[in-house]
Amino acid sequence: MSGNADKPGLICASSGLMTDLYQITMAAGYFQAKKQVEASFELFVRRLPENRGYLIFAGLEQALDYLRDLRFHADEVDYLRSLPAFQHVDRRFFDYLREFRFGGEVWALPEGEAAFANEPLLRVTAPIIQAQLVETYLLSTINFQTLIATKAARVVESAQGRAVVDFGARRAHGPEAGVLAARACCIGGCVGTSNVHAARILNLPAVGTMAHSFIMAFDSEEEAFHAFRQAFPETTVLLLDTYDTLEAARKVARMPGPIRGVRLDSGDLCALSKEVRRILDGAGKKDVRIVVSSDLNEYRIEKLIQDGAAIDIFGVGTEMVTSRDQPALGGVYKLVELIEGGEVEPKIKLSLEKETYPGRKQVFRQNDAQGRYAGDVIAKADEELPGGKALLEPVMKKGQILKPHPPLSEVQLRAKESREKLAPEIRRLRQPADYPVHYSQALKDLLQQVLQSMNARMVPGTDL
Amino acid sequence: MSGNADKPGLICASSGLMTDLYQITMAAGYFQAKKQVEASFELFVRRLPENRGYLIFAGLEQALDYLRDLRFHADEVDYLRSLPAFQHVDRRFFDYLREFRFGGEVWALPEGEAAFANEPLLRVTAPIIQAQLVETYLLSTINFQTLIATKAARVVESAQGRAVVDFGARRAHGPEAGVLAARACCIGGCVGTSNVHAARILNLPAVGTMAHSFIMAFDSEEEAFHAFRQAFPETTVLLLDTYDTLEAARKVARMPGPIRGVRLDSGDLCALSKEVRRILDGAGKKDVRIVVSSDLNEYRIEKLIQDGAAIDIFGVGTEMVTSRDQPALGGVYKLVELIEGGEVEPKIKLSLEKETYPGRKQVFRQNDAQGRYAGDVIAKADEELPGGKALLEPVMKKGQILKPHPPLSEVQLRAKESREKLAPEIRRLRQPADYPVHYSQALKDLLQQVLQSMNARMVPGTDL
Repeated sequence: MSGNADKPGLICASSGLMTDLYQITMAAGYFQAKKQVEASFELFVRRLPENRGYLIFAGLEQALDYLRDLRFHADEVDYLRSLPAFQHVDRRFFDYLREFRFGGEVWALPEGEAAFANEPLLRVTAPIIQAQLVETYLLSTINFQTLIATKAARVVESAQGRAVVDFGARRAHGPEAGVLAARACCIGGCVGTSNVHAARILNLPAVGTMAHSFIMAFDSEEEAFHAFRQAFPETTVLLLDTYDTLEAARKVARMPGPIRGVRLDSGDLCALSKEVRRILDGAGKKDVRIVVSSDLNEYRIEKLIQDGAAIDIFGVGTEMVTSRDQPALGGVYKLVELIEGGEVEPKIKLSLEKETYPGRKQVFRQNDAQGRYAGDVIAKADEELPGGKALLEPVMKKGQILKPHPPLSEVQLRAKESREKLAPEIRRLRQPADYPVHYSQALKDLLQQVLQSMNARMVPGTDL
Repeated sequence: MSGNADKPGLICASSGLMTDLYQITMAAGYFQAKKQVEASFELFVRRLPENRGYLIFAGLEQALDYLRDLRFHADEVDYLRSLPAFQHVDRRFFDYLREFRFGGEVWALPEGEAAFANEPLLRVTAPIIQAQLVETYLLSTINFQTLIATKAARVVESAQGRAVVDFGARRAHGPEAGVLAARACCIGGCVGTSNVHAARILNLPAVGTMAHSFIMAFDSEEEAFHAFRQAFPETTVLLLDTYDTLEAARKVARMPGPIRGVRLDSGDLCALSKEVRRILDGAGKKDVRIVVSSDLNEYRIEKLIQDGAAIDIFGVGTEMVTSRDQPALGGVYKLVELIEGGEVEPKIKLSLEKETYPGRKQVFRQNDAQGRYAGDVIAKADEELPGGKALLEPVMKKGQILKPHPPLSEVQLRAKESREKLAPEIRRLRQPADYPVHYSQALKDLLQQVLQSMNARMVPGTDL
């Protein structure tokens, strides 16, 4: 990886090789067949993960940066040429890759917006080689960040206004996943992250204090508390549960001057938090915040709050950054339309199990009288549905990003507002109600039309 | 991210900021307290994830590269200085960070070796600031790769000698997770990956063919098959299930010349694979391999094989690269010893729920007469246990990697041999038996000694 200039790193975000091989073999197939066709692909999720009533869309910024920067560097093209599978590929294909740029058009939901099953989150229209090649990276960044933003929104919901911060770097799926998860957690409503690199590049508050090992490295707990406070007199947060939580709380109660907070990381968090609060309040330290961590998730936080725990800040790690109960989002990227020689051909893959609608689409969202989200209609892209707001907007044309990425705070605000416009039964942590999503009549008609033309062209099915 | 030279990327592997903030606040605390102490930390897993009888240790190469390359770059130090929390920190601390290098010693299991609960996988000994600071990154790379190598070993086990390949890039937790997962999957026994960048940098076979959209982009399936074959005459693998799987198989049966394989991605994979095999064999195409994919995991593969499916290669994605049933490994990194002024002080954090042993340790593994792994003893690092092989070996001294990283093929072979030395009941997919792991008498004595000295020093417990 790093430290060796001759060796490419574990990750090269703009590399054309950060994809599945089949994207490149298909590209070669199209190239040699001189397939000059414009294709539209839509990225959507067929079914919401269990216990999710909505998704928070995230990952668009990284997706667009990728499309803007995507290149096949000379050494990468040489690598492909060296593969035995590519021995018979027309040499001109490699010249094509060297000059490759993504020059297509992208429509997408704004980041942070709530979305539902089957709604296109993003649509790519480009010459088919380009539109196809970008599938893997787009799915990888949008699937993951949407998964985590959605999970974080649940955790934040469960905390009922108390602060939630991301502590997950050590259990995320590798270092980059920790950074992307920190971003998605903040979109979902977290107010900070322990990940310093993420905090820096995303302009987020960095949070964190000390580990048990710090306390253990000193001869006494008092000495450790004192040493830490010397360095951070105004922002001291002290870890209480290395030896005896309540004894440590009493030590904090006796310390003169301001203490920002204390952290509990084990034991009966509810009972301990109440007792620690009592000790601190008794010493006039009502402004000392109580932070807890320890395998928290939305259900445990809900229970702590129900039981009246005296907790101000929840530090959530593993469960949030891996979306542990549902650790994958099944986003797919499907061909919906071809334009060849000016002729538009809406496309679907026939499937018994999976209903998919052809053609480029738009999502129209209706508000009720109170401004709440009342239902969506998935329509043809060129329809106008009065009373509904069109959610997909153009974000890239001819490979150029159309406007600067919004700051993360704006994305976070959109997610918050969007979540708050959902009815409580949609936001429920367990078995949420279905949000109403319908298809427009024109789209249904198009589906029938496509099905009829496919049946007319196909050999009678003999599938098992 | 990329494309903007002024802005640091989503990931900077060697950056001192790729960590939790508390590692840096603790460093400042130690620095100001002039804490000159050598510390040993051990990385281990307290409990194996459900249905896992063993772990395959992975991630060491990235961990050591990180320790070798770790730096605080000037702009990173400036960022820390700019944080309000660091306003009162001694300015000399930032000079210290600018010169920071990891100069410690590391012992570790060889990558690919089987390991069990509570066994140290890696031990770091260094001045405490250094040893502490690296915790987050080490956990993040070793937790994830060990999780996935272990999951992949299960999938490979279920395939009973048939090939398994990684198809997971689009569902991994971001682009880097896809690369790290590809590496870990290959350590666990996969024979290739669809991820081209991973294949390149890890020197793995890249695998992949075509998507349904490729077939749909042509006027007919035959035309698509033909176009693909033109580009890849010797390695053609054709996707059969876009329209009608058996009809497509009959088309392949009629094609002259060699076909490398066919892929099925939907439907009743068992019945379809048998029927496709029959059609191909009937046309004398016995050497055409059948590849399947479609939400596979170890249980589905086991069932397919039990039912006599005619499958040569399993393409496994989401379930393997997210370790979907158990998506996090709870590895921890705990202080076990301090050396201050030449005096060795073994350390543990007292905990009602969690038994931890103090001091630097070694793991001794016994073989039975057949060469199978018969049981492990966790002992003090300086013990000699006759008949057992010491598993932890020195891999870094004074911050220098001691020998070149073994090629991935060697790590993969070690994992295979190590897995094969485990009794079948340990390797079982469901409710595996416990592998025998014991503590040496000397280590038990040390624990008692430490507990007594802690009790003597502590105020009587008043914890809830």
